[in-house]
Amino acid sequence: MFRYSIQFIATVILCWVGFAFKPNGFLYSNLGMNNSKEANFGIAIHGGAGVILKQNMPDTLEKQYRMELTAALTAGYAVIEKGGTSLDAVQTAIVLLENSPLFNAGKGAVLTNSGTAELDASIMDGATGKAGAVGGLKTVKNPILAARKVMDNSPHVMMVSAGADAFAKEQGLEIVTPDYFITPARQKSLQKMQEEEKKAPPGTGGFIELSETASYKIGTVGAVALDKYGNLAAGTSTGGMTNKRYGRVGDSPIIGAGTFAANRTCAVSATGHGEFFIRNVVAYDIAALMEYAALSLTEAARRVIFEKLLPQGGTGGVIAIDNQGNITMPFNTQGMYRGMMSVKHPKPQVFIYQNQ
Amino acid sequence: MFRYSIQFIATVILCWVGFAFKPNGFLYSNLGMNNSKEANFGIAIHGGAGVILKQNMPDTLEKQYRMELTAALTAGYAVIEKGGTSLDAVQTAIVLLENSPLFNAGKGAVLTNSGTAELDASIMDGATGKAGAVGGLKTVKNPILAARKVMDNSPHVMMVSAGADAFAKEQGLEIVTPDYFITPARQKSLQKMQEEEKKAPPGTGGFIELSETASYKIGTVGAVALDKYGNLAAGTSTGGMTNKRYGRVGDSPIIGAGTFAANRTCAVSATGHGEFFIRNVVAYDIAALMEYAALSLTEAARRVIFEKLLPQGGTGGVIAIDNQGNITMPFNTQGMYRGMMSVKHPKPQVFIYQNQ
Repeated sequence: MFRYSIQFIATVILCWVGFAFKPNGFLYSNLGMNNSKEANFGIAIHGGAGVILKQNMPDTLEKQYRMELTAALTAGYAVIEKGGTSLDAVQTAIVLLENSPLFNAGKGAVLTNSGTAELDASIMDGATGKAGAVGGLKTVKNPILAARKVMDNSPHVMMVSAGADAFAKEQGLEIVTPDYFITPARQKSLQKMQEEEKKAPPGTGGFIELSETASYKIGTVGAVALDKYGNLAAGTSTGGMTNKRYGRVGDSPIIGAGTFAANRTCAVSATGHGEFFIRNVVAYDIAALMEYAALSLTEAARRVIFEKLLPQGGTGGVIAIDNQGNITMPFNTQGMYRGMMSVKHPKPQVFIYQNQ
Repeated sequence: MFRYSIQFIATVILCWVGFAFKPNGFLYSNLGMNNSKEANFGIAIHGGAGVILKQNMPDTLEKQYRMELTAALTAGYAVIEKGGTSLDAVQTAIVLLENSPLFNAGKGAVLTNSGTAELDASIMDGATGKAGAVGGLKTVKNPILAARKVMDNSPHVMMVSAGADAFAKEQGLEIVTPDYFITPARQKSLQKMQEEEKKAPPGTGGFIELSETASYKIGTVGAVALDKYGNLAAGTSTGGMTNKRYGRVGDSPIIGAGTFAANRTCAVSATGHGEFFIRNVVAYDIAALMEYAALSLTEAARRVIFEKLLPQGGTGGVIAIDNQGNITMPFNTQGMYRGMMSVKHPKPQVFIYQNQ
């Protein structure tokens, strides 16, 4: 009888342990949280995902991309290394990418149907859950700073169009004339797309099927960071898509879609075909998979990018960092401009193609 | 030996059954899905949540609210009862609420700082995952129809400001002059708020603390429905908040925040202090809790409204319907204009206060 009981108890314990350590079990989800947070900090950035192939990339241009990504990465990392906040690190990296004419954000943004730039950005603080977003800015040099001002100095989360420009100006941000943003390369892209559009068959309502090979919207920028205090932050900035009309807004200024951060899970910034990212609430979905389904950051991000978006035809990628400093940067396109740097790997690592 | 094995096997089976029927177990989440979908259909609507108290409500006004809610509810229900789609049911109900001067959407919308209406709306199809949203409309009689046109006839999800008005006009929607939306009651509210604002202490950046008792943004409208084909849909429409400036956008046109629908889980429309609803990705969070944490619709909606939003000070509520036709309408304010009607309870039920 005694031996029966031993066997019975042992079996129950085995079952319990088996459940507790399952992905949905209660112990599993707590295991990772007990590590010390103080030691971990890091940052990841992106400069857009899309059809980016080595054979189409001149060496000098590739070198320039790598240089500017490295500069943004190291500047953001320096902020957290010196004890600054993840919010300031994200903002610092994004301002540099906005100022670079290479990326589709700030200077060098793609142009709308009317030949001007209309800029969207958002930022979120994982410590407080506060967020700021702007859409359709036309005169603010650095849209990410406008998003930050909305978060810090207004009771609102989102402001759009002329009202958002007016608020940014009142807040003392640098205002530029619309031609500041325009580069010859983007003017050429717009011209090319408008010529294609003229050939569009009737009945398409003026919307043409956008070629997968066109670089019509590559170059959205973003950053995510974990600081020494265990606080996460995420930010995203973009010019949207070439030849856009009707005040089209993509996922970049949408909290939950293009940007999300919560200290209990992760910080995410997305880039890609924005409509799919809005419908799938991509950035928050990664956090929800971690919190509710106990997936790791890497598992959650891969599930969204490869198992949800890809079968729908939703091209793009994300950068994400969790509250332990783990970083993942999955994308389902040929390339994504990206980089990461952390206390564990304090040398900047910059990538463009699948494995390099 | 044989008896040991029997006991061992019985124990393992008991453990397995115990796990399988736990809230996170694999059987539990499937149990509800095996019911026949054909028999269930229904609709729920809301006309805003906030400080709505019986002692402040004249009887004639209350009667009018109940009549107009009932009219919208029965019109939406008639669509699905006759074999129409949940999308058309949602749209039909919302158009009636937009046309009523009682609610803060379409005619009777609250007024911006400059004395005009700026209207936001969104709609989502749970069957396809497609969605449409508009922000800052000034001339379109029924913003929900503009959101539907964005979904059906453009490759985009979101359009804002003048561009969105232009698109709606090109799509043949009814255009009105800005004074169509203005009612004396809303002009009075704006005047009152602008007088309060003049008394705001310096250093508040022109933003005044909005009184909990002010009806400055009550009245956002929305609808969710399940049709005979098992397809879910959700829609939301609003004028935002009285005296809004800077192109402020709330949660109503944000897919994932104010509106979400997916056939695998539920359809949700939200109303309340929009900034909190954006930061908490409220509508999608309810769906994620069902899908990933195996909560029921009612459990998921209550967790978000009472355990997440309320402790943050995020006032408001949601209406939601799941793919079995279950309806829940939780809110953490004194009242919410709301109603529901389903094949199981085909008599329209309309409520305003906590229990009536």
